[in-house]
Amino acid sequence: MSLIIALDFGGTKLAAALVEQGSRNWLGYERRLSPTNADAQTDLEIMRSLIHSLLPGQKPAMIGVSFGGPVDATTGTVRLSHHVSGWENIPLKDLLAQEFGVPVSVDNDANVAALGEHHFGAAQGHNSLFYITVSTGVGGGWILNNQPWRGAGGMAGEIGHMVVDPTGPVCLCRKRGCVERLASGPYMAQDVRQRLENHPHSSEIFSTLVGNNLPLVTGKVVSEAATLGDELAQEVLYRGAWALGVGIGNVANLINPQLFVLGGSVTKAGNRWWEVVQKTARETALPEVDFAVVPAALGDDAPLWGAVALAEISCL
Amino acid sequence: MSLIIALDFGGTKLAAALVEQGSRNWLGYERRLSPTNADAQTDLEIMRSLIHSLLPGQKPAMIGVSFGGPVDATTGTVRLSHHVSGWENIPLKDLLAQEFGVPVSVDNDANVAALGEHHFGAAQGHNSLFYITVSTGVGGGWILNNQPWRGAGGMAGEIGHMVVDPTGPVCLCRKRGCVERLASGPYMAQDVRQRLENHPHSSEIFSTLVGNNLPLVTGKVVSEAATLGDELAQEVLYRGAWALGVGIGNVANLINPQLFVLGGSVTKAGNRWWEVVQKTARETALPEVDFAVVPAALGDDAPLWGAVALAEISCL
Repeated sequence: MSLIIALDFGGTKLAAALVEQGSRNWLGYERRLSPTNADAQTDLEIMRSLIHSLLPGQKPAMIGVSFGGPVDATTGTVRLSHHVSGWENIPLKDLLAQEFGVPVSVDNDANVAALGEHHFGAAQGHNSLFYITVSTGVGGGWILNNQPWRGAGGMAGEIGHMVVDPTGPVCLCRKRGCVERLASGPYMAQDVRQRLENHPHSSEIFSTLVGNNLPLVTGKVVSEAATLGDELAQEVLYRGAWALGVGIGNVANLINPQLFVLGGSVTKAGNRWWEVVQKTARETALPEVDFAVVPAALGDDAPLWGAVALAEISCL
Repeated sequence: MSLIIALDFGGTKLAAALVEQGSRNWLGYERRLSPTNADAQTDLEIMRSLIHSLLPGQKPAMIGVSFGGPVDATTGTVRLSHHVSGWENIPLKDLLAQEFGVPVSVDNDANVAALGEHHFGAAQGHNSLFYITVSTGVGGGWILNNQPWRGAGGMAGEIGHMVVDPTGPVCLCRKRGCVERLASGPYMAQDVRQRLENHPHSSEIFSTLVGNNLPLVTGKVVSEAATLGDELAQEVLYRGAWALGVGIGNVANLINPQLFVLGGSVTKAGNRWWEVVQKTARETALPEVDFAVVPAALGDDAPLWGAVALAEISCL
């Protein structure tokens, strides 16, 4: 029996799961929140204890790892974490391989999620797809010819910083009107908060949801307000959906994948958000370019199932 | 001795060349203009006679074909030509294979040029590249993992219809501010002609170049006028270079290829055009994304050398 350990270093949460190769049911599953003062060492300590509680005194056959930040997948070295300090240039693959004496494979969460959806989720049976996460940020991972495509420097998939509105608001990347600047949860919340600060009594719906406490406005609150009929929330949310749709249409023209799979918290914003994304993508792509845009199937376990797929394709 | 016939159905010109496998020197080379009333049958007749004059009474080992229009590369069927009538759904690969009794491989000119630059030109030694032709239209062809990437429906590479300025002029594709609408030769010429029609005596330089005969303004004339210092020509030409640079930067973020190779008549517009393209691409891509943007090396023979590469990889 060949056992695979799947690890998810998610930034704010850490998860580990155990599965028999070929099976689609976890034999064991452990999840912890990252402590507030976490660093790379505490994260690694927690993960070690999760592994040992899943497999007391035994060795897995291989380990697959999803990491929430840029990774050099060739060497399995973490470049950094945007959430947890101390991850700069940590050779995560080598550390785990030495400690457990088994093959280890590491990649960033978007690439791993793409693999997971391809092997076990919404993209089974498709040989080309682009997975897009729309959440705190907007990023993506490629499967082309049934294999991950990571780019010459491991940087492929950055749909978040495609400019779709050169007259739009300025992004952290210093360009205007990027997909991420318009479509990510925190930026949508920021735009709503700014508008409400300037017009404090303009929205009964936001008053009901957060009172006067504008810092409580998150991407999730924006989509709730939109569902309840708030015009400002709808304007901001569907502008984000439009931006993402333009990005998807442009990508369809460039690479012509069979499928786009969308995951992340913002994709739970409701039917109208999906309609705007799909309609805009269809209008942006050339008429001869066929594709579908579908929701991710694996939900919160996507990084773990993707890590299983990564271990299977990399370590065998 | 294994002989390869390379064919270029270029729309307005037809070319055939003969090369020994592995060699980089033509054994024979024939080129004809397509007659003004050309159709698929006359083009095929001319091509037959070119082949027979290159190889009298002999058989090549294989045939590679570059076609200037959409092709289903899997079946070798031409979908249509935008220049010559009668090419709708012509099984070009099968026709040639039956007639000459040898393996034949057919693809569209952008994909073939990408292969040619990869095997014999500016992209030798690179395993990922995007070739972009900037000429009558703007299109591209991919090499990823040293192989052509054509997309699920053979439509990959359409950078020309990426929107870079949603407030820009309307393109034939009905969107505004596509790369092709701003950067292709005929559209740049059209924009200059319109401005000159509204202000007939505004440019001494254009008066010198074409007199009052505005239909003589082509993309080439626009770039000549820009070199001579005409402000309108510079504005239109460098707006096109900007649009192409934005497109390239976005593609770098998405796919992270090692190299962009640019060919086509507009790329002969001079150093300043190249500087604007390269600077804009660099500013548009994320700082961590590395790439180079270089001129194509094969010139007018690119489709023929690409057809040689196509025959070699497909027919062996």
